[in-house]
Amino acid sequence: MRSLRGALLALAVIVTLTAAPAYADDGVRHLPAHDVAAPDTVSPAMQAVIGGPLSPIWNAHPKSADEWKTLIAKLANDVVATLPALREHLGVSVEPTLIAGVKAYIVTPEVIAEANRNRLLVHVHGGGYVLFPGESGTREAILMAGYGHFKIISIDYRMPPDFPYPAAMDDAMAVWKEVVKTNDPKNMAIFGTSTGGGMTLAMVLRAKKEGLPLPAAAAPGTPWSDMTKTGDSYFTNEMLDNVLVSNDGWLGDAALLYAHGHDLKDPMLSPVYGDYQGLPPMILTSGTRDLFLSNTVRVHRKLRAAGVEAELQVFEGQSHAQCMRDPNAPETKEYFAEVARFFDLHLGK
Amino acid sequence: MRSLRGALLALAVIVTLTAAPAYADDGVRHLPAHDVAAPDTVSPAMQAVIGGPLSPIWNAHPKSADEWKTLIAKLANDVVATLPALREHLGVSVEPTLIAGVKAYIVTPEVIAEANRNRLLVHVHGGGYVLFPGESGTREAILMAGYGHFKIISIDYRMPPDFPYPAAMDDAMAVWKEVVKTNDPKNMAIFGTSTGGGMTLAMVLRAKKEGLPLPAAAAPGTPWSDMTKTGDSYFTNEMLDNVLVSNDGWLGDAALLYAHGHDLKDPMLSPVYGDYQGLPPMILTSGTRDLFLSNTVRVHRKLRAAGVEAELQVFEGQSHAQCMRDPNAPETKEYFAEVARFFDLHLGK
Repeated sequence: MRSLRGALLALAVIVTLTAAPAYADDGVRHLPAHDVAAPDTVSPAMQAVIGGPLSPIWNAHPKSADEWKTLIAKLANDVVATLPALREHLGVSVEPTLIAGVKAYIVTPEVIAEANRNRLLVHVHGGGYVLFPGESGTREAILMAGYGHFKIISIDYRMPPDFPYPAAMDDAMAVWKEVVKTNDPKNMAIFGTSTGGGMTLAMVLRAKKEGLPLPAAAAPGTPWSDMTKTGDSYFTNEMLDNVLVSNDGWLGDAALLYAHGHDLKDPMLSPVYGDYQGLPPMILTSGTRDLFLSNTVRVHRKLRAAGVEAELQVFEGQSHAQCMRDPNAPETKEYFAEVARFFDLHLGK
Repeated sequence: MRSLRGALLALAVIVTLTAAPAYADDGVRHLPAHDVAAPDTVSPAMQAVIGGPLSPIWNAHPKSADEWKTLIAKLANDVVATLPALREHLGVSVEPTLIAGVKAYIVTPEVIAEANRNRLLVHVHGGGYVLFPGESGTREAILMAGYGHFKIISIDYRMPPDFPYPAAMDDAMAVWKEVVKTNDPKNMAIFGTSTGGGMTLAMVLRAKKEGLPLPAAAAPGTPWSDMTKTGDSYFTNEMLDNVLVSNDGWLGDAALLYAHGHDLKDPMLSPVYGDYQGLPPMILTSGTRDLFLSNTVRVHRKLRAAGVEAELQVFEGQSHAQCMRDPNAPETKEYFAEVARFFDLHLGK
C-alpha cells in the first residue's frame, strides 16, 4: 500500500509539474528574474573582475563616424595610459614598424626563452574590428611576450569607420605573406582574442584558400566566430556577461559597420562557417559566463569533426575575455602559460 | 567641437549607465526574466532534447525510504523498458555477474574492435547515487559498447536509501581490485557520467591513495564533482538546464541521503577537492546549459594545474548529460566516438 501510494504521489508530482506554466513544451525556457552573485570558486582578483559592473559602453550606439571615432579614441586612451607600467612590470619593449606597408609593432620580452629563439608569434588584437587602434592594440601581445617569453608581431590593421572589411583582413594577410618569407612558418603561430580570435581563424582559413603557408598552431581566444547572433550563449549569457553584455549594443552595430554590406555569414566575417579540413592545431578558450561561449565551443566541435587537434579550456565564472583583464590575477598567468605550453608543443625550433 | 560633443556624450552614456539600477557594484548580477528558445545550432534531434520540458521529477522530495524506492523503481522501469531495443539496435549483449561479491554486468558488443581485444573498460552509472540500480544502470555502457566497440564491466554498486556512503565506493573499488588481477590496468579505463563521473574521479583518487594500479585513462562525463552547491553554473544555469534544473530538488536531497552525515567536502564525495597530482589522462565533457558546467571545468582546470593531460569538450546548448539522451542523435555518436578515440590514444593493446 505504502509503495502504491508513493507511485501515485510520484505520478501526481509529474502531472502537476508538467502542467505548470514554467514547463513549456514549445522548446522555450521561461526564466524567472534572479540574482547571481560573483562565484567564490575563482581567485579574489578574478572575483572582483567577474563581479564588476556591466561595461559602461555596452549599449552605446554611435550615430556617425565622428561619434565612433570619439568613442574609439576615449577607450584607446584609457588603455594606452596603462601600458607603460605593464611593459615595465613585464620587461617588454614595443617598437612600431611597417611590414609590407602595414603598421605593426614588434613586441619583445627582455628574455626570449631559449626554445623560442627561432620562433615568432603573430598577434591580431580584439575590439569588434573598430576598437583599439595603434598602441592600444598591443596589450595582449605585451602579456604574451611577458608571460610566454616569445617575440611577437602585433598587427595594427586598418579599421572602420574609415576602412571596413576587407581592409583589416587584407592588412593581416599582407603581414603574414611578408613574415613567412624570412621566418619558417613551422616555427610560427597566430593568436588573438575576441575579434582577434575570429581574425585568427579567418587568417588561417584564407591562408589555406590562397595556398599560403599555414602557421604551426593557432590560439583563437573566445573568437567572434559568428557575427549573426547565432549560437545559444548569445541568449543564455545575455546580461550575465558583464563585458559584452549583449549583441544588441555597440557589438552588433560594429559588425554591420565592419561588414559594410558583405554577407555576415561569409566565413571571412563569421569563420564558424568555414571549411576546417587541414587546419593546424588550435587551443580555444572561453568562460562559463562568456557571451561567446557558443562561438568558442561551436568552432571547437567543428575542428574536432574535421579531425583537427583542438584543445578547449573554459574558465570558471568568467565573462568575455576576462582571462586577461587583470594582469596579476592567477587566472591570467594560467591562461598565457597554457597557450605558451601549447605553442611549445607544436612549434618547431 | 563635434569631437568634444561626442566625448561629452560618451561620458554621459557612461555615467547614466553606471547609475542605472541593473549596474550593481555589489558583484551581483540582477538578471531580468527572459525567454530562451532552443538553439538552432545543434542537430534537429538534439534540438528536441534541449527544448524538452523540465524533468518532471526535478523538484521531487521523497519523504521516506519507501518514497525514494517508489521513485527509484519507477524511473528504473522506464529505462529498462527501452533497453532490449537499444541492445538489439547496437548489437550489444549484457550478462549479469558477480565480481568480488559485487553485482555487475558484462557488456559486450557483437564485434570487439581489433585494437580493443585486450582492453577492458569499467563503467559506473549515474543517478545521484540513488537512481538506476540493476539493469537500468547499464544504458551508458551499452552505448559505449555499441559505438566504441569495447568490452565493458558495468558496476551495479549498492545505493541509498539502504546503503549510503561508502557502500557504493567500496563496491566499485572491490571490483577494480579484482579486475586488475587478471587484466593489465595499462589496457583499462574507467568512465561514467554525472554521479558516474564523480565516482570515476573518486575511484582514481582512492586507487592512488591506496597504492592500487591506476587506469590508463578516464572519462568523467559532466562529473558531480562538488556536492555542496558550490560553483558558478549551479546558479547561472539554474532553471535553464532542463535535466537537473536546480540543486534544490531531488539532487540536493540525494547528496545528503548518500553522504549520511559525512562531510560533503570529502574528496570521496566531492572529488573537486582531491589531490590531482599523478592522475592518468582524462577527457571531460559538459554542455553550455549544464548545471554541472562548473563542476566540469573546475576539475579540468585542477587537472591542468597539476600537469595532468586533460581534454575538455563542451557541447553547444546541451543541458546535463544530454550528449547521450537520444541514442540516434549525431551528437551522441560524436560523444562516444571522441571518448573512444581518447581511450584508443592512451590505452595499451
